[in-house]
Parts: sequence; structure tokens; C-alpha cells
Amino acid sequence: MKRLEEIHSPADIKHMNEAELKALCEQLRHKMVDTVSRTGGHLSSNLGTVELTVALHRVFTTPKDAIVWDVGHQCYAHKLLTDRYERFDTLRQQGGISGFPNPAESEHDAFVAGHSSTSISVANGIAKAKALTGDDGYTIAVIGDGALTGGLAYEGLSNAGRSDDRLIIILNDNKMSISRNVGFVARYLSHLRSRVRYVRGKQRLNKLLNHTPLIGRPIIALLQRTKKRVKRSLFSNTSFFENMGFHYMGPVDGHDLEDLTEALLAAKSVRRPVVLHIDTVKGKGSPYAEQKPDTYHGISQFDPDTGIPVGGGESFSSRFGESLCRLAAEDDRIVAVTAAMIKGTCLEEFARQYPTRFFDAGIAEEHAVTFSAGMASGGLLPVFAVYSTFLQRSYDQLINDASLMNNHIVLAIDRAGVVPDDGETHQGIYDVAMLATIPNTTLYAPATYRELELHLRQALYDTDGIAAVRYPKGAESPLLAGYEPSYKPYDYDDDGSRDLLLVTYGRTYGEVKALCDRRRAAGQATGVLKLNRVLPLDEDVAAIARDYRCVLVLEETRGGVGELLGSRLLQSGYAGHYAVRAIGETLGACTTQQGLHRVGLDAEGIEAFVRAHTEDA
Amino acid sequence: MKRLEEIHSPADIKHMNEAELKALCEQLRHKMVDTVSRTGGHLSSNLGTVELTVALHRVFTTPKDAIVWDVGHQCYAHKLLTDRYERFDTLRQQGGISGFPNPAESEHDAFVAGHSSTSISVANGIAKAKALTGDDGYTIAVIGDGALTGGLAYEGLSNAGRSDDRLIIILNDNKMSISRNVGFVARYLSHLRSRVRYVRGKQRLNKLLNHTPLIGRPIIALLQRTKKRVKRSLFSNTSFFENMGFHYMGPVDGHDLEDLTEALLAAKSVRRPVVLHIDTVKGKGSPYAEQKPDTYHGISQFDPDTGIPVGGGESFSSRFGESLCRLAAEDDRIVAVTAAMIKGTCLEEFARQYPTRFFDAGIAEEHAVTFSAGMASGGLLPVFAVYSTFLQRSYDQLINDASLMNNHIVLAIDRAGVVPDDGETHQGIYDVAMLATIPNTTLYAPATYRELELHLRQALYDTDGIAAVRYPKGAESPLLAGYEPSYKPYDYDDDGSRDLLLVTYGRTYGEVKALCDRRRAAGQATGVLKLNRVLPLDEDVAAIARDYRCVLVLEETRGGVGELLGSRLLQSGYAGHYAVRAIGETLGACTTQQGLHRVGLDAEGIEAFVRAHTEDA
Repeated sequence: MKRLEEIHSPADIKHMNEAELKALCEQLRHKMVDTVSRTGGHLSSNLGTVELTVALHRVFTTPKDAIVWDVGHQCYAHKLLTDRYERFDTLRQQGGISGFPNPAESEHDAFVAGHSSTSISVANGIAKAKALTGDDGYTIAVIGDGALTGGLAYEGLSNAGRSDDRLIIILNDNKMSISRNVGFVARYLSHLRSRVRYVRGKQRLNKLLNHTPLIGRPIIALLQRTKKRVKRSLFSNTSFFENMGFHYMGPVDGHDLEDLTEALLAAKSVRRPVVLHIDTVKGKGSPYAEQKPDTYHGISQFDPDTGIPVGGGESFSSRFGESLCRLAAEDDRIVAVTAAMIKGTCLEEFARQYPTRFFDAGIAEEHAVTFSAGMASGGLLPVFAVYSTFLQRSYDQLINDASLMNNHIVLAIDRAGVVPDDGETHQGIYDVAMLATIPNTTLYAPATYRELELHLRQALYDTDGIAAVRYPKGAESPLLAGYEPSYKPYDYDDDGSRDLLLVTYGRTYGEVKALCDRRRAAGQATGVLKLNRVLPLDEDVAAIARDYRCVLVLEETRGGVGELLGSRLLQSGYAGHYAVRAIGETLGACTTQQGLHRVGLDAEGIEAFVRAHTEDA
Repeated sequence: MKRLEEIHSPADIKHMNEAELKALCEQLRHKMVDTVSRTGGHLSSNLGTVELTVALHRVFTTPKDAIVWDVGHQCYAHKLLTDRYERFDTLRQQGGISGFPNPAESEHDAFVAGHSSTSISVANGIAKAKALTGDDGYTIAVIGDGALTGGLAYEGLSNAGRSDDRLIIILNDNKMSISRNVGFVARYLSHLRSRVRYVRGKQRLNKLLNHTPLIGRPIIALLQRTKKRVKRSLFSNTSFFENMGFHYMGPVDGHDLEDLTEALLAAKSVRRPVVLHIDTVKGKGSPYAEQKPDTYHGISQFDPDTGIPVGGGESFSSRFGESLCRLAAEDDRIVAVTAAMIKGTCLEEFARQYPTRFFDAGIAEEHAVTFSAGMASGGLLPVFAVYSTFLQRSYDQLINDASLMNNHIVLAIDRAGVVPDDGETHQGIYDVAMLATIPNTTLYAPATYRELELHLRQALYDTDGIAAVRYPKGAESPLLAGYEPSYKPYDYDDDGSRDLLLVTYGRTYGEVKALCDRRRAAGQATGVLKLNRVLPLDEDVAAIARDYRCVLVLEETRGGVGELLGSRLLQSGYAGHYAVRAIGETLGACTTQQGLHRVGLDAEGIEAFVRAHTEDA
């Protein structure tokens, strides 16, 4: 029998027997826990889909058959079985393998995932392309119950169910989305799970009738007839998926390789799109991850024996959570909304203290914004805490339901700028440019914890329409220990000369200020203009900048301020030297420091940029 | 009895009897048909909700109770009953009343709608605000079956169903979304409608037991017990809404005032969120609108007797539809996608000729993009035809599923720029700035039909990643009769002098060229740079522009090119005069010409802008 390290292609597992495959599953789990304890990563969901992955590669043949992993939180076993064992230690490291599927990395990865609830629509598209180009391969989407809370998954189901392509949706039901699962999906799936005894009984019948793993057509027909009859009286609540146009099968024990294999073979033989509902345990096989699947959903380094995380401590996120609790104590109009990120956005304590004023929308950023706008129109002060990258989902709702109607909602934009580990689908680099396109929007960018508290208060009480506060993942810069935040839209540090003005905001201010201090100590004149309020760009900024011989903008985003200020300076008749350092490229997995280095926004990059332009000027 | 013109508040109808209310309904219908025949507007959906509106104002009391109309296509009767009869002739006219609800217009309008599928989330928010502030008013969302195809409606249901607020969702089932209704919603609602006989039977029972319109608690309890028992054996397919957490009632005849009134009273007495399913006929009461509800969904002026539309003829949209059919005949990889806008985007002929290659996603722009990206990854050439304003819904999917993965999808962006009649929620003025924030995106802006055909071909065959073509609603400019489109990213009309350069694109080019001709005839040197490809902005553009003493950008959007070119010119050391005319304001209902005049992009405005800056320079 081949050991995991000897498997270089899914073909290698096709002829393994049950016992060998079970041993393989153990090895996969061991390798994952061991690696993630050092690299960090998504542990719980990956431990939960080991048997599913093995069964998928046993029954299907990638890349001819395409597997689309929703969010991609569950692709580690798939990566280990598709020739990435040797590079697995580089998981989520700069230059290493991605924590998400990526066709650029392997032909066995059908599509990049990263944001939730896309897999059904993607699989619908791939299956349609196969059908129209005469390719008889299967397309399989694997989607968790958490991802099913997103509206895009519903749109995908409603459309994919109308096709007659070779499409199988595997609903990986681990009874746990990123946060506590909410609403319809949880309630409905719990009902379906109560049928588990019946389906397993049917499966035993299969085995009696047919000992080969391939279930023959007649048996399927019998199963379907039986099911139809029983369904009429008892199990009619499968109707959600049936009404979507799918043949529903399940639930099946997602940790029983034999059951899974048979179910997949059966799904393969159905002549229309199938939903196969499997029941898995998040964190399966790891005592601490099973007990606290939430904690080990996405985790940094930890001790592989005890599971105790390394690091932690104070962060912009934790200070946001604490501040909001304090503000809410003074003002009962304040309500908090999250889209399945209660832990990541540090709203747990708020939810505990103010349960009636806290709302977890599920993975539903569109609803979160429109719901907030509705609450605002009713006189509340909603604060939607959301990662920068996921706020992109709400663009239209921000414009129509908040901005145009002047409904006052506060956005606490977490993970803004360079985000470690998850790669290009999770970088928080679009928010500034995106919000710059929306009228009636104010954006603050605190550089320190104290400033975050101040900006949150300003966003709540001094601002109309959309009021956003953006802050990075992680801790404030030790370089700003003595910084006193002001109530002003900008801080202007004028040294009297008019040689060089550095314009910046947020985290970048730490290094810019340090550079300014070094330059002044060396007798090089340097002014710094720190934007506290990034949008709307204060009129004064161009007025101050136009007196300088050289103006340099440094921003930890894809841009926004650079174009705005440049265009404005030019229109005001400015004729000096102007340059912008922003994030022009996509940015794969890396640490924060590596990312800032790559885009030239660490100490070294900023210094080099300023040197190049001051020598020029 | 009061006639419609004497009703100034919903209070005036509270004491009318059935016969009087029925007569009122006739008057409402007559007034709508008469007005819309002159103003244009949404006819079919408004004719379908006359009795519902009257029943709502009979049972509830706005503004204490809040009615949230989804999309707002059905608010005309509501407007006529809430003191807007006299101004109703100004519907959708500049300075007149909006075709959509608007709190700025009346305290009886709870929220602006315009984009679909938002009402449940909004009502969830308003009801929550009422609950938390101790207001015992009801919140009612009215949503059509078409709007239910949008993922946001699903997110809204899933979240609103968990609340215990005074919330009633009225599902206005007219068996017809904007285009042919698709997928789950159509199939599921059709099943529910088959129950209509049962519910009406129950209602007759009610009437026997209780002759007053107010159904007492005991009757409700009886109804619920009976329903539960029957449900177990026959009607279990209400489970979608029940699993969402709602009490489901219906279907009820949406044109029977008595039944509607009773059902609303019953819904009011239920102690948790209710879905009330009503059955209406789109276009009810107008023979031609009933027969062709699609044609009279959103319509321009027509003859009120025959229903024959005024105007019509060739447009950018129709030429797009024809071109795509021709291209598809040559290349069977081409597939077309719409989000419930088959008529508006002129894809009917494509759907007829290539039924297996045409996909109507329902009102699901997110799915449309991700599905297209999936098809592209499988080797097809998807073209998603979408209104500029609705593309905003796909921002995140454009970034993650198309741009970052370099999946080549084509966007045919219709209704770009100033859009007549529908007001600020439908202006196509965000697309350029929005797409400018997304890497790997190409945007073409044809000024004529022939150029549209050329750009469509370029988008399909000469471009990677996202390739978009934006064009306005309506016809090409007669000013461009002789224009020969080029394959180049820009056309530069150089008159040798370096005094003034006008940079523009798309529709605006017609007036800019005409002005240029007038200026040259008067001996005023004028260069024109027409961008054919707007994004990415060609490197040459700044290189050409920097030689001019004065550079003016004119763009029919909120901006995008102005900031990009300004910032670039400044960075290249330009020191001339620079100014931008873009759409800085929100823009209410108006004709295209009125809108262009308001934002200063008609002949007069452009000339004034150029004069002001050339006298300055």
C-alpha cells in the first residue's frame, strides 16, 4: 500500500481498498494538523472533508471531471492527493501553495475560490461549457451549510437546477457556518438530518442486493420508486431542493467512505442535477478542533498537541469591539451587524451584552447593508462590521439603500490594506477606490487604537450618509506610541520649508512619520500631511499641497486618493513634482510585512520611493 | 361617496364600503392608464396591485405602519391615494413625482426602491427599529415573484423570518417577472397556487362563522389547527416559507377586495412574521396590458385606446442584439446571459435563434457574472447584457471570479450615462469609475452603431479578462452620420495647434465634435481626442495631452477618466490648464435631453464649459 507521500496523482488511490483508504485518511489528517500548527490555516473545515475528498477522487477523475470547492476552505486533502504533498509545508507562505484552490497551481483545481457561495454558479457555468462543447465530464460543487446562507448560492441553485447537465452539488452539512449558523438553512437542514436513519437503511438494502460498489440502474430505479412513495407521506420536506429542480439524495454519513462512495456513484447515474447532502463533523479527528470548531476555523500557529494558539493579544479589531460596547452603553440606538464574522470582527462581547441589538446576517453582506439602511431609516444607529474584501459584495446596496437615501449607516471596515496569508482574494485593497465612487460617503482611516475610538465616535455622531472607518488586521504601530489623535480631517506637520510633502493615512503613517523624523534629523526638509478623514478629500489638502515643490502620496490600497488629489492639484494650477505609491499589483499569500515589502510600503520601500523622487525633483 | 380626486389621505377611504371601494379601484385604473399613456411608466405591475393597495390602506395606517414596495413598480395607486393625485400628471417628468416611492415626496413612502429584491431586508430593518424603539406599528413589504429570484430576497427572508417583529411580507404572485419567470420561484409558487381552492373554502367558512370583517382570534386558531392537520398530508410544500420562520397564508385572490381585507386582518393578528401569498394578474383591467404584460411592464407613451406604443425604432440596444446574433452564427462558443432583461437588452431574437446558448438568470446579476466566469473557464465566450445600474450588483463577482482569474467575459453595458424617466436609482453613471477600480478590465465606449459592432467584436476577440462595451439608451447621434470607426484605442483629431484639447468618449463625442467644427470654422484652434477604449487609459493619451496649453475632459459619468488622466498628466510634469466636466450630482427623473442639460453635457453646456475654460486659460 502506498503511503501519502508516495501519492502523486489521484490515479494512485483508485485501486486502494477500504482499509488502505481509511489509513490514508488518517495520514491526511495527521499531515494537516501538523502543517497548520506551523503555518496557520483553515483547520476545522479541512478535517471535516477528508473522507469526502478521498471518495470524490475515487469515483471521479480530475481534471476531466471538475471539482469546485466553495470558499476553498476544504481543499487541503485535495491538494495533498494532487501532487502538492512535498510543497504542503509552504501552505499560505509567500511563494508557496495557496490556502485556496488555484488553476495556476494545478490542473486539478478547477477554479479559484475565496469568497463564499460562488461554487454552484461556477459549477453551473463549467457544466454548461462541458455540455455545449461535447465534453462528457462531470462537474461537482462542494458547498458548506454556511455558504448556503449567501444569496448567490440561492441564485445558483435556482438556475443550475433548471439545466440538464452533469452537475452534482455536494451539500457539506457540518451544522456550523463560520459563526453560529442562522436562519432558514440551519432550520431546514436540521429537518433533513432527522431522516438519516431511513437513508442508511436503504443503503443496507442496496448492499444486500448488490455487492459491487457500482449501483446498477435497476436498484436506483427501485430506490427512487420507494423514495417517492415514502416521501409522499413522510419526507416531503426535501421540496426545497426538489423545487429547485434537483434530485435530492441524503443525508449520508460524510465520514463513512463506503456510504460516500456509493452515494457518489448513485449521484453519477442520475440523469439530472443532483444535490447530495452529507453530514460531517467540523474538526473531525482532532479532539480540540472538534470541541471548538470555531476557534480552529481559520487559525494562526498553534501547539499541535494541546491546540493552544501562539500569539493573539490586542488588535484594531479587539479595540473596535471594546469601543463599540462602551458606546452602546451610552446610546441604545446603537446596533451591531455582522455577516458571519462575529469572532473575526470581535463582536462576541457586544452580542453577549446586547443580544437584542446584535444581528448576525449569515454570509449575506448585501442583506447586512440593506437591513442596516432600513434600521437607520427607523432611527437606529447601525454599525456593520465587515472585512474590506467582503464589503465589495454590497456595492449596489451602499449606493441605493444608504447613499442616495442619506440613510446614516456606519461601516467598520476590518482587514483593510494588506491582509496576511489568504492571498489575492482577501486583500483589503479595493475599499478606498470603491467608496470614492459613491456620493455621500465619509471614510476615516485611523492609525492608532485611540484614533480608531475617536473615528468611530465621529462616524456615529458627526457624519451623515455612509460613514466608514477602515483599519488593518493586527496591532497598531509601535512607532506611533506618542501620537495624539485630533478631531480634524487631517494633521499637517509643517516644518516651514516647502520642499517635500508626504501625504498618507492609516497604518502607513507610522513609517512615513519615522522617515520624516530621520530626514529632519539629517537636515532634509519634510512636511507630512496625514489624512484622518480620507473621503471626502478635504479642500484644504490641495491648497496646502500646491505650495510644495514635491508632493508624494503613499496609500495602502489600489489607489483612490492619488488620482483624486492629482486631478485636483492639476486643476488648481499646480506644476510641481507629483507621484503616487499605491498597490498596483495583485498580491498573493504572504505575511503583512512581506506584503508591505512587495508593494513598497514598508520602511525600506517608502524610503526608496521618497529618495527616488526627491533626487528627481 | 368621494371620488378619487377628492381623496387626499388614506384616512378618506377607511369608511368606504365594498361597492364604493370597487368603484374607486376602477377610477384608479382609469387614471393610471390615461396618465401612463402620456408619460410612459410601469403599467402592468401597477394595474395588478390596485385592490391590494386599497386593501392595505383600509387595514393599515401609514405612516405609522410602513409599506415597503419592492422595486417600486407597483406604487402608483399608493401615490394616488396619498395626496399625489393632482401632481400625478407630472409622473416621471423633470421636477414631477417619481415613478418610485420616495420619502422626500411623501411621509407615506417609507423607503426609496428602484433596484429589485431589497424590500424584505428593508422591512426587516424598519420593523426591527420599531421594535427596539417601542413603536407598535406594522411593517409590510410587497414583493413580486420576479423579485423573489434575487439572492437578496432570499437573504432577507432567511433573516427576517428569525425576528419576532410586526412584519408582513406580501408575495404578489403575478406569475411573471420582468421576463419569463425562471427556476425555483416559478415552480414553487405554481405548486402553492394549486392550493387556491382550499384556502377560499376556508374563507367561506370564516364568513359563515364571523360576519364582521375582523376575524377573531378563535377563528384564527381554528384555521391554524385545521391547516396544520391538512398540511401534514397534503400541503406540506409551504415548507419553504415555514422553514424561513414565517407563518404562511394563501394564496388569496389579489383582485377580491373582501378576501384581501380579511387576509390582511388575519395577518395582523398573527404573533410572528407572516408571508401572505396573493395571486394577481399583471395588467389587470386593461385588455392589451393583460394580454402582453411584458410589453406594458415599462413603457413609453402609447395610445390609451389601442395600446399601440408611440416611437420605437432603432437603438444601440437593438443593434447590439442584431450584432450578437450575427457573431453567434460564426462562432458557436458565444453564449448570451441576461438578468431578467431579455426585452430591454434586445436579446429576444438571440434567444429564439440559439435557445441552448441563451440564459436568463432571473434578477440575479451576481449569478450572471459568476456563471459567465464559469462558462469562460470552460472555453465559452459569454456575453452578459446588463443595464449599467444593475451591474453594480456584481462588483465583487467581477473582481474575484472574472478579473483575478483572468476569465474572459464580455459585458454589454446598456443604459450607460443619463437614463430617462426612472430617476436617480437608474442612472448609469457609476460604471466607468467602478470598472476603473478593477484590474484586468477593458472598457469600450462606442459613439455610433457601427462602432458598437466593432467594439463588440474587439471585446470578444482582442481582449482578455473583463471586456465591457458601454452604450446609452436610445439612438445614435445624427451629428455623427459620417463617422468612420477605427480599430485604434483612440481617435486623435489634430489641427496642428496646441491650444485646446477636448478629451471625451461615447455619446458625448457627437456634441464635442460639432463644437469642434464650429470653433474651427470660427478660426479657434481645437483638437479632439476621442477615447474608443476608455479603460485601460492608453499611455499615449497623456503624452498627446501634455503638449496642449489647455486640456478639458468631458465624460457622461460620475468620473473616472478625469481623475486618471489628471493624475497621470501631473505625474508626467504637465503644467497647463486642466478641467473636467463629469456628472457630479445625483439626477432625478428627466428626459435624456433634460438630464444632459442639467449636468452640462448638452450642446449648450459643453460650449459654455469650453468657453469658460478657454477664456481662463
